[in-house]
Amino acid sequence: MTAGQSAATAAPAAFDSLNAALKRAAATVDATLDEVLPRPEGLHARVPEAMRYAIFAGGKRLRPFLTLQSAALFGAPEAQAARVAAAIEALHTYSLVHDDLPCMDDDDLRRGRPTAHKAFDEATAVLAGDALLTLAFGILADPKTHPSAEVRMRLVARLAEAGGSAGMIGGQMIDMLAPERDYGEAEVILLQALKTGALFEFACEAGAILAEAGEADQARLRAFAKGFGLAFQIADDIIDATGTAEEAGKAVGKDQDQGKATLISLYGLDKARTEAARLAGEAADALSPYGQAADDLRALPFFLLDRPS
Amino acid sequence: MTAGQSAATAAPAAFDSLNAALKRAAATVDATLDEVLPRPEGLHARVPEAMRYAIFAGGKRLRPFLTLQSAALFGAPEAQAARVAAAIEALHTYSLVHDDLPCMDDDDLRRGRPTAHKAFDEATAVLAGDALLTLAFGILADPKTHPSAEVRMRLVARLAEAGGSAGMIGGQMIDMLAPERDYGEAEVILLQALKTGALFEFACEAGAILAEAGEADQARLRAFAKGFGLAFQIADDIIDATGTAEEAGKAVGKDQDQGKATLISLYGLDKARTEAARLAGEAADALSPYGQAADDLRALPFFLLDRPS
Repeated sequence: MTAGQSAATAAPAAFDSLNAALKRAAATVDATLDEVLPRPEGLHARVPEAMRYAIFAGGKRLRPFLTLQSAALFGAPEAQAARVAAAIEALHTYSLVHDDLPCMDDDDLRRGRPTAHKAFDEATAVLAGDALLTLAFGILADPKTHPSAEVRMRLVARLAEAGGSAGMIGGQMIDMLAPERDYGEAEVILLQALKTGALFEFACEAGAILAEAGEADQARLRAFAKGFGLAFQIADDIIDATGTAEEAGKAVGKDQDQGKATLISLYGLDKARTEAARLAGEAADALSPYGQAADDLRALPFFLLDRPS
Repeated sequence: MTAGQSAATAAPAAFDSLNAALKRAAATVDATLDEVLPRPEGLHARVPEAMRYAIFAGGKRLRPFLTLQSAALFGAPEAQAARVAAAIEALHTYSLVHDDLPCMDDDDLRRGRPTAHKAFDEATAVLAGDALLTLAFGILADPKTHPSAEVRMRLVARLAEAGGSAGMIGGQMIDMLAPERDYGEAEVILLQALKTGALFEFACEAGAILAEAGEADQARLRAFAKGFGLAFQIADDIIDATGTAEEAGKAVGKDQDQGKATLISLYGLDKARTEAARLAGEAADALSPYGQAADDLRALPFFLLDRPS
């Protein structure tokens, strides 16, 4: 299957099914998040308030979707998968809250609303981010997530790795240093692989871990995530380079303003689109052993690339 | 045993033994920290550099001491205890790095050196703190920490609780809100119980968990930690109220300048000292079943109260 064929076959009907699956996944993880997030009460109610403000912001819940889909592929119970998805979304949300801070990307707008430090204040945003990060591990460690402590441990260990200094945090550090450095293609790909790719990879792999699927299955899900992650990033960069703030729900054109290299600035828009379609095809191919059961997963990168921009 | 007797019997000889035990604990945990902390290399070397800068700052390693002592009391292997102690110290250090930020306590000096955001920059300090927090869970989840996944899970769950929004982070939030609120004794005690007490409690309990000691032992260690934690806080407040910046290694008099209530401002210095000695006695009493094996632990609160101030 080539990228062109994949893109052609992943047309409207596939997108309708995917759209419905995305909505279901978002509703499922939101219900679980409401259950596991602390309720605002007592003298420190402000932290739970800010945690809930940041996490219930109408995000697309792509990572929860990936986890729920991969869990379904291997037959893990949805209630377990929803808890892992909630942990991953909590970790993802903390990273957004901290990345938006004035000392980091200094963003006032996120998903069309004031960022957490604007709606509350910087101290509360730092603490709410810290609390979301801590909660992510607490959710995974809870026996409700899986009866086997070995499985829960593997999830905790992999989340710590994906989110840590050699994963997501390392990617954000490389990104922060970008304006003073002259990154080429290899550096930009590494940056994205760490900053967003590492957590996508864990989100995809988590369903297989939860179902105690074999290493071959875990590796296939990771391979899907690798292609998907870069395709996602190119789609996101296209919006940043060509979209409006209204479409994006956040400030756009910042990478260019700050002189940061992206795959768009390195490749040009046309080559970037072609490359993204190729990566989406590669990702789809990694899931071929799963047949139609993986159709929604396979369609996701094409769907993201198809967004108006 | 009354508080007065405890204080009297905990005189010079006990302090010599304690001093030696503190030094040994610090050396042990420092060696383990050096092993588990990432090495600065690659494009994101700056985060590991800042993590190491913040953690190797000549701290007293009180929490690691508590964990190593409680592990020894119940016969857990020191190598395992050192890893748990390293995780707790990583979490404690992240909280210092974030609390020192301009948007939080805005401190330039910590242990006589520039704080992390002064030595590096704010973005790096936020990320290094995030990475230390993430690493703490990664260390605990690693099979090297304990062969039983059940034990490791319990450690992860308890650390997430102690460090979370209803624990340490909640305490810092209450503290940040202090200048605009009029806290009385109950609020100040709750603030301290969360901000520093929760992690002390886990540090003490962790050795018992690691050794798979019974609930009665875990409860005794928590009772010790409760008395110890408040006595520690009063000792710290006394230094803030009466010491010099040189003695404290950080700015002093800040609580008073910011109009924050402390146990000193509520009780007065004399009553605060008496109360701290009483709490230290209560803490010591909780360990009476362990006889001489707990002598160094028992001496610690008296030792901290005995510091020049």
